[in-house]
Amino acid sequence: MTSSNLTGAIFSTDAMQRVFSDRACIQRMLDFEAALARAEAAQGVIPETAVPAITACCDAGAIDLAALAAAAGPAGNLAIPLVKQLTAQVAGVDAEASKYVHWGATSQDAIDTGMVLQLRDALDHIDADLAQLADALAKLARQHQHTPLVGRTWMQHALPITFGLKAAGWLDAVLRHQDRLAELRARVLALQFGGAAGTLASLGTQGLQVAAALATDLGLMLPDTPWHTQRDRVAEVAAVLGLLTGSLGKMARDISLHMQTDVAEAGEPVAEGRGGSSTMPHKRNPVGCAVALAAAVRVPGLVSIMFSGMVQEHERALGGWQAEWDTLPEIVQLTAGALQQMRQVASGLTVDAARMRANLDTTHGQIMAEAVTLALGGKIGRMAAHKIVERACHLAAATNRHLREVLVQDTQIIAELSAGDIDRLLDPAGYTGESAAFVDRVLQTYHRRSPHSRQE
Amino acid sequence: MTSSNLTGAIFSTDAMQRVFSDRACIQRMLDFEAALARAEAAQGVIPETAVPAITACCDAGAIDLAALAAAAGPAGNLAIPLVKQLTAQVAGVDAEASKYVHWGATSQDAIDTGMVLQLRDALDHIDADLAQLADALAKLARQHQHTPLVGRTWMQHALPITFGLKAAGWLDAVLRHQDRLAELRARVLALQFGGAAGTLASLGTQGLQVAAALATDLGLMLPDTPWHTQRDRVAEVAAVLGLLTGSLGKMARDISLHMQTDVAEAGEPVAEGRGGSSTMPHKRNPVGCAVALAAAVRVPGLVSIMFSGMVQEHERALGGWQAEWDTLPEIVQLTAGALQQMRQVASGLTVDAARMRANLDTTHGQIMAEAVTLALGGKIGRMAAHKIVERACHLAAATNRHLREVLVQDTQIIAELSAGDIDRLLDPAGYTGESAAFVDRVLQTYHRRSPHSRQE
Amino acid sequence: MTSSNLTGAIFSTDAMQRVFSDRACIQRMLDFEAALARAEAAQGVIPETAVPAITACCDAGAIDLAALAAAAGPAGNLAIPLVKQLTAQVAGVDAEASKYVHWGATSQDAIDTGMVLQLRDALDHIDADLAQLADALAKLARQHQHTPLVGRTWMQHALPITFGLKAAGWLDAVLRHQDRLAELRARVLALQFGGAAGTLASLGTQGLQVAAALATDLGLMLPDTPWHTQRDRVAEVAAVLGLLTGSLGKMARDISLHMQTDVAEAGEPVAEGRGGSSTMPHKRNPVGCAVALAAAVRVPGLVSIMFSGMVQEHERALGGWQAEWDTLPEIVQLTAGALQQMRQVASGLTVDAARMRANLDTTHGQIMAEAVTLALGGKIGRMAAHKIVERACHLAAATNRHLREVLVQDTQIIAELSAGDIDRLLDPAGYTGESAAFVDRVLQTYHRRSPHSRQE
Amino acid sequence: MTSSNLTGAIFSTDAMQRVFSDRACIQRMLDFEAALARAEAAQGVIPETAVPAITACCDAGAIDLAALAAAAGPAGNLAIPLVKQLTAQVAGVDAEASKYVHWGATSQDAIDTGMVLQLRDALDHIDADLAQLADALAKLARQHQHTPLVGRTWMQHALPITFGLKAAGWLDAVLRHQDRLAELRARVLALQFGGAAGTLASLGTQGLQVAAALATDLGLMLPDTPWHTQRDRVAEVAAVLGLLTGSLGKMARDISLHMQTDVAEAGEPVAEGRGGSSTMPHKRNPVGCAVALAAAVRVPGLVSIMFSGMVQEHERALGGWQAEWDTLPEIVQLTAGALQQMRQVASGLTVDAARMRANLDTTHGQIMAEAVTLALGGKIGRMAAHKIVERACHLAAATNRHLREVLVQDTQIIAELSAGDIDRLLDPAGYTGESAAFVDRVLQTYHRRSPHSRQE
Repeated sequence: MTSSNLTGAIFSTDAMQRVFSDRACIQRMLDFEAALARAEAAQGVIPETAVPAITACCDAGAIDLAALAAAAGPAGNLAIPLVKQLTAQVAGVDAEASKYVHWGATSQDAIDTGMVLQLRDALDHIDADLAQLADALAKLARQHQHTPLVGRTWMQHALPITFGLKAAGWLDAVLRHQDRLAELRARVLALQFGGAAGTLASLGTQGLQVAAALATDLGLMLPDTPWHTQRDRVAEVAAVLGLLTGSLGKMARDISLHMQTDVAEAGEPVAEGRGGSSTMPHKRNPVGCAVALAAAVRVPGLVSIMFSGMVQEHERALGGWQAEWDTLPEIVQLTAGALQQMRQVASGLTVDAARMRANLDTTHGQIMAEAVTLALGGKIGRMAAHKIVERACHLAAATNRHLREVLVQDTQIIAELSAGDIDRLLDPAGYTGESAAFVDRVLQTYHRRSPHSRQE
Repeated sequence: MTSSNLTGAIFSTDAMQRVFSDRACIQRMLDFEAALARAEAAQGVIPETAVPAITACCDAGAIDLAALAAAAGPAGNLAIPLVKQLTAQVAGVDAEASKYVHWGATSQDAIDTGMVLQLRDALDHIDADLAQLADALAKLARQHQHTPLVGRTWMQHALPITFGLKAAGWLDAVLRHQDRLAELRARVLALQFGGAAGTLASLGTQGLQVAAALATDLGLMLPDTPWHTQRDRVAEVAAVLGLLTGSLGKMARDISLHMQTDVAEAGEPVAEGRGGSSTMPHKRNPVGCAVALAAAVRVPGLVSIMFSGMVQEHERALGGWQAEWDTLPEIVQLTAGALQQMRQVASGLTVDAARMRANLDTTHGQIMAEAVTLALGGKIGRMAAHKIVERACHLAAATNRHLREVLVQDTQIIAELSAGDIDRLLDPAGYTGESAAFVDRVLQTYHRRSPHSRQE
Repeated sequence: MTSSNLTGAIFSTDAMQRVFSDRACIQRMLDFEAALARAEAAQGVIPETAVPAITACCDAGAIDLAALAAAAGPAGNLAIPLVKQLTAQVAGVDAEASKYVHWGATSQDAIDTGMVLQLRDALDHIDADLAQLADALAKLARQHQHTPLVGRTWMQHALPITFGLKAAGWLDAVLRHQDRLAELRARVLALQFGGAAGTLASLGTQGLQVAAALATDLGLMLPDTPWHTQRDRVAEVAAVLGLLTGSLGKMARDISLHMQTDVAEAGEPVAEGRGGSSTMPHKRNPVGCAVALAAAVRVPGLVSIMFSGMVQEHERALGGWQAEWDTLPEIVQLTAGALQQMRQVASGLTVDAARMRANLDTTHGQIMAEAVTLALGGKIGRMAAHKIVERACHLAAATNRHLREVLVQDTQIIAELSAGDIDRLLDPAGYTGESAAFVDRVLQTYHRRSPHSRQE
Repeated sequence: MTSSNLTGAIFSTDAMQRVFSDRACIQRMLDFEAALARAEAAQGVIPETAVPAITACCDAGAIDLAALAAAAGPAGNLAIPLVKQLTAQVAGVDAEASKYVHWGATSQDAIDTGMVLQLRDALDHIDADLAQLADALAKLARQHQHTPLVGRTWMQHALPITFGLKAAGWLDAVLRHQDRLAELRARVLALQFGGAAGTLASLGTQGLQVAAALATDLGLMLPDTPWHTQRDRVAEVAAVLGLLTGSLGKMARDISLHMQTDVAEAGEPVAEGRGGSSTMPHKRNPVGCAVALAAAVRVPGLVSIMFSGMVQEHERALGGWQAEWDTLPEIVQLTAGALQQMRQVASGLTVDAARMRANLDTTHGQIMAEAVTLALGGKIGRMAAHKIVERACHLAAATNRHLREVLVQDTQIIAELSAGDIDRLLDPAGYTGESAAFVDRVLQTYHRRSPHSRQE
C-alpha cells in the first residue's frame, strides 16, 4: 500500500516484486475468471460460445489500473471494478458473452483464489531459495565440522564449540522449515468458490461440479466447503513464513555478531557497491544481515495482524478480511527478501578460522578451565579439582597471566598433570564434545531430504 | 508473572492451571534431573549408587518456592537456584550422590526440557477438548443440515444459507487444526540437552549415548542437535495454537452476533451464576464467547512475542529466550480456556430455528430477489429478468410492502411465473444451493478422522 | 513496499499517498540536502558559490528512480545512491559545487530528517480531518442529545441511553487525541543531524552552529543531541496514531452494529458506487466502517513493529532502524484513511430515531424493569420491589406478554403505582439518567478547544 | 494469569508484585466500593448509617479468594462475586447497610476504577525509579564527557565518540519519557463511574453529584463522560510504557554489546549470586540487561493487544475489555522490572576507559582516517586528500601495518603534515566533534527538570 518500489528493492526480491505487483494481482484474479468461464461452459452452465471472448479479455495488460484504483475506494475491493472493466471489454468483443462474466461468483472468490495462485508462485520461489540455503549451510557445516570457535552464552565466552556445529544448527532449523512448507501446501493451495453467501445457490444443482472443474483447471485442491471466513489456511502461510524469518534473523544476528570489528570471525561476501563506506575504509557493513534482521523485526507484528484478522463475521468479514490484503504479500516478500540475502551471505561467507582460534584465547585460557577441572577431577575427585582450578583461575585473572602459566606452577596440579597434559587440555580443539557428531546427524537428515545435494 | 489465580479462573482451565503452576513447572524440571541421573548412571557416567538419592529428592513438594523466588531474581533463571536447593537436599541424604546432581547439564537443558514435558501434558488436554468440540459441531451440522438461516455478508442480510453449513465451516477449521497439532508433536516433543555450550563436552565421549538414553527415559525424540537457540520448535506451538484461537474467536464472534437481543437466533447454554443479571432480567450474557474473543485479542500479540524472541544470540540468548517463559504458558492457557468455553458453548448451544426462519423475512422478501431473477432469467433472459426484479424490489421498498405483493401484481412477472412459483421461489429453504452437500463433505472428512464418533 | 497503488486507493487517502509517494520521499531528503548546503554556506563551512547549483539540483523530478532502486538494494538504503545521483547532477552544472553535496552529513541524517518533514505534512492533514470529525460528532451529540437508544452491554440490550451520549463518547476520545497530537509535535518535529557517528566531527568546531541554522531553515526543533538510535520520537507517532485508530475502530464497530439489517438504527451515507450490490438490492455495505476496522486490525501489529525496532545497536542500528521505513508510513496512511472514512461517515450518518425507539421495545418492556423497581422501591423498599418486579418479568417472558400488561394486573404493584405511573416508568426517554448532562460536559470541552466551531 | 510468583521475581519488582497482587487488585476495588458508599451517603442517596458497616468490610484480607476464583469463571469477571461476598459480609454486620453495597454501580465501574488506583501506585514507583535512572545517567555523562569510545555503526567501528555522549543519548530519551508520563497522568487518573449502561440512571438526578464526590474522595479526575468503552486512556499507559521499555532495551543492548568478552568496555555491577558461573569463572553474565531485553521483546506484543482491544462494542465490550485485565498489569510490571534493572546497572556500571581507548586502535588507526583526510584536505583540497589517505589505508591493511607507519612514510603526506601533526590527528580524543557540547545540552535540560539533582 505504501507504494514504494524503492524500499521493495531493499527488502523484497525481484521475483517477489513481480509476483505481488498490481499487475500480477489483477492477472491472477483474471486467471480465476477465465478458468471459471471454462469450467462453467464445460458443465453446461454458460454457453461454450462465451468462453473465447471471456478468456481472451482476461489479460491484465488491457486493464486500466488508474481507473480501477479510482473505483476501488468507494467499492471497497478490487474485484467489483475489475469485473466491471472486464465485462465492458468482453462486451466490446461479444455482447452475448459479456453476460456470463463472473457468473455465479462473488468478489471474494476472485480475490481469494487469485491470492492463492500468487502464493503458489511465491512458495515455489521460497522453496528453491531455501534448498540453496540448505546446500550452502551443509557445505559450511561439513567444511568447518572441526573448526574451533568460541561458544558464547549471554554474549560472553563460555566454552569451545565448532563453527560446523553452528552452521549445523542453522541448517537443522532450515530442514524443519522445509517440512512445514510441504505440509502447508496441502492446506493452502485450495480453491475458494462459494458465490454471494458461500452456497453456490445461483448455480442451481451444478455448483459442486463447477467447483470441481474449476479447481482442476487451476490445479488447486477442492476444499470440503468454501473458506471465505475460515482464514486458518492463509494465516498459516503467515505463521510458517514467520517461523522461517525468525530462524533467518537468528542466523543474521549470529553472523553480524561474528562480523563485529571487535570479533572479525566471519564476514558477508564482498561486492562492489555493497556495504562499504568511502569515508571509513575499514568498514564492511553487514547489509544482508541488516535486511534479514529488519524482516525479523517486522514479520512478527505482521503475523499478529493475520491472526487478529481471523475473527471474521458470518459469511463475509468487516475488516478482518480486508486487513489481509496488504499484510500477507508483505510477509511473503519480507521472508523472501531475507531468505535471498541469507542464501547469498551463507554461500559467500568468509570464515576466518585463524581469528576464530585466536579469539578462543581472549580469556587467556580461562575458557578451558572446565576441561582441566574434569581431567583433574578424574584423578582427585571433582570437588577437590574444582576448588584447585577455581583458585588458579582467580590467580591468573588477578595477576593478569595466562591460565597455563599458573597451572604449571601449581604443585597440586602438576602432581597429577604433566605440562604436556596441560597443553593438551588447554587446546580448544580437544574439547568440542559431540560437535562433530551433531554435525553428522544433521547432515544425514539433510541428505535424506535432498539426495541430489551430496556434493558438500 | 502477573500472579493471578483469579484471572486464571476466568481465562484458563483447571487442568491448565495445574499443568503450568509454579509447582508443576518445578516438578517437570526435576523430572528432567531425575531422568538425567538415571541415564548417566546407565551409561556409567555417574555411579548407580547416586541415583536413588537424586531421584528421591526430585520432588517439587520439597522445594522451598519462596527461597527459590528470592534467588531467581539475581540468578536470572529458575534452574540455578533449583539445582542448588536440589543439591543441598540430596546432600542431606547422601553427600556423595549430591556431587552428581545436574551432571553435565546446563540450566537451559532443565528449563527447556521441563517446558517440553509441560507442553506434552497441555497438548494432550487440548487434543481431547478439540475432539469433543469436533463432535459437538458435527452434531450441530447434521442436525441443522437443512435449517435455513440468513447468510450475512458485511453484517448485512445477503442470501439464505443453512445453520448446518455454518457449523460445518467451524468444524472444517477444527479438523485442519487437528492435523496441524499432530504434525507439530513430531517436532516439539524433543529433548533439549547440550550442556554449557551445546556440545556435551563435559560428558567426554558419552554425550550422545546419555542424550539418547535420556530422551528414551522421558519419552521424547532425540533431536539431531541441541536446539537451545533454534526456537522454531516452541514458536511453532505458539503459531499453531494462535491459528486455533483465531478459529475459536471466529466461532465466538458468530455466536455472539446470533445471540444479540436483536437477532436471538442462538444462545449459549444457560446455567446458574452464568451470564445472568439480577437487575436486567432479560439479559443473557455470552460469557463463553467473551472468553474466546478475549483470547483471540490476546494470543496474536503473544505469538508475535514468541516470533520476535526467535532472534537469539549465539549459544544462549540475551532476552529472546527469557521472553518465552511466561509467554508460551500464557498462549497455551488462553487457547485451552477458549477451547473449553467453545466446547461447552457448542455442546449446549440453544438454536432457535423458528427465529432463524423469521429473520429471513426481515427484508420482506428482498433477500430472495436473486432466486426470482434466476428463475425468470431462465425464461426471458438474465438481463431482462434482472431489470424487472430490481424494479420490483425498489417498488416494494419504497412502498414498504413485501416483495411477494409486488411480484404477484407485476404483469411481466406473472406472465412467466405463477403465484405458486413465486411462493416457492420466495422460500429460503429452496435456495440454499450446495449447503447440504458441503455439510456432507465436511462430515465425511470428520468421520475419516474420528471413526468412533459416528453417533452424530 | 508492497507496491500497490490499488490497495492504497482503498486504505489510504489521496493526500497521504502523495505525502508518502516515492517521489515525495526523495524530495524531502533533497529538501534536507538543499537546506544543509544553505546552512553550511551561511556558517562558512562550504563556499556560498556552491549553494545555487546544489539547491537547483535538489529536485526529485530529476532523479532516476529506477536507477535509484537498482542501487538501493546493495547499498542497503536510499540515501547513498541518492547522494550519488545528486552529486553527479550537481557536477554536471558546477563541478566545484559537487564537492560540497551532503557535506558532513550521513545517510541517516537525510533519511530521518526527510521522514520528519513527511510526518509534518501528514500530521497537518490528520489534524484537519480530526477537527472536522470532531465537528461532525459534536453536531450529532447535540442533535441527538435526547434521542433514546438501546444501551447494549455484552451485545445484549441493557438499559436506555441516548444516541447523543454515544456520539459524545466518540467525541470525548477525539478531543483527547487532539491533545496527544499537539504534545507529540513538540517532540517529533526535530532535526536529525549528527554525521557518521553522531558527533558532527567532520564539521570541526562548527557542527552545532550548522545544526542550529539547518533546524531553523527547515522549521524544525534543534534537539539536545542527535537521536539516530533513540527512536522514541518516531515510535511515539506510531503510538499516538495507534490510539487514534483504536478509537476510530470502536466508532466503526458501533456504527456497523447499528447498521446491521437486524438493527437498522443508523447507516453510512449513501453514494453512487458505494456499498451497494446489484444482485442483492437490499444491501447497504458499511464500506467506510470496513476500512476503519481493517485499519484497527492492522495498526496494532504495525505499532508493535515500531516498538520492537527501538532496540537499536550503538550509533546506527542493524535491522531496527530499517524496519521503520515502510512501517511508519503505513501506520500514518492507515490512520489517515480510517480517519477520512469515519469523518465522512459521521458527517453523513443517517440516524433512524424511530427505529431506535422501536428497538427499545424488543424486550417487550423488560429493558425498563430497573426503572420500575426503583420507583416501587422508593415506596416499599428496594428488596421487596426487586422481588415483585422480577416475578413480573419472568411471568411476562413465560407468557410472551409485554411487561406493561403484567404490571398493570399485579395487585401489589397497582397498589403503589397508577397505570399512568407505569406508562411513564416504561418510557425509555424518562430513564436516560445523566446522558444529557454528559453530552453537555463533552460539548463544553469541545467548544473550549475549538471556539470557532460553535455552530453545532 | 500464568500464576507465577517465580518468574515475577525475575521480571517484575517487589513493589510491583505487591501493587498487582490478587489481594491488592481486590483491595483497590473495595476502595472504590467504600468511597462510593461515602459519596452516596454524603449526597443523601443512601443512608449515612450504612457507611460504617460497608467501609469496615471493604478489606481484602477478609475476602475468600479461592471462593472468588471459583465464582469468577462462570460470572466472567471478578466484581460480581466480589460484590456478592462483600454484601454477605456487610449483612453479617448490618443487614440494612448491606442493601446499599455497590449502589447504582456496575461491575466495570469497580474494576476500571480499581485498576486506575493500581496504576497510580505503579506510576509513582516508575517515576521514582526513572528519576534515579536519570541521576545515574547524568553522572555517567558528566564523568565520561571526554572519555573516548569507539562509535559503532552497523556494529562496525565507525568514528570516535565519547562514552559521555552515549550516556547523554540514553538520558535524553529518559527525559522525554518523564514528560510523557506527566502528560499521561492528566488523562488516565480518571474515575470510571457510569452504572449499568453509562448513564447513572439508577441514581436519579444525583448521578453527577455522586460522581463528583466519588472522584474527589478517590483523588481522581472527574471525566466529562464515563469511558467504559473508550479505552484510549488505559491504552495510552501501555503505549507510553512501551516507549520507555524500548529505550531501556536500547540501553541494555548497548551495554550488553560493550560487555561482550571480546569488547569488555563496560560491565554490569558485580554482586554475590548475580551473573556468575561456577564452572566458567571468567563469565560475567549481563543479567540486568537480559531482563530489560526480555521486556523489550515482550512489551511491544503486549501493547498491540491493548490497541487491538480498543475496538469495543457499544456500552460494554465482548472480549476487548477482558483482554486488558492481565495485559496491562503485565506491561506495567515488565516496564518496572526493566527499569529497576537498568537503574541498578547504570548506577553501578563499571566503565573501563582504558579498554575503550585500546579498542579505538583495533583498526590500527584506520578509524582516524577521516580526521587525517580533513586536515590534509584543508591544505591540498578534499578530493586529493581523500585519494591519498585512501591509498594509505589500503596499503596499511594489505601490509598489516598501523596507519601511522604508512602515513609517516608517505612523501605526499609528510610534505604537509609533521609526525607530530599525524600523531595528534590519530588521537581519537581530538576528533570527538560536538560530543561534549551535546552532553552539556542534555545535562542542562536534565537540570531544568530536576533542579535537586545538581550533584552529578
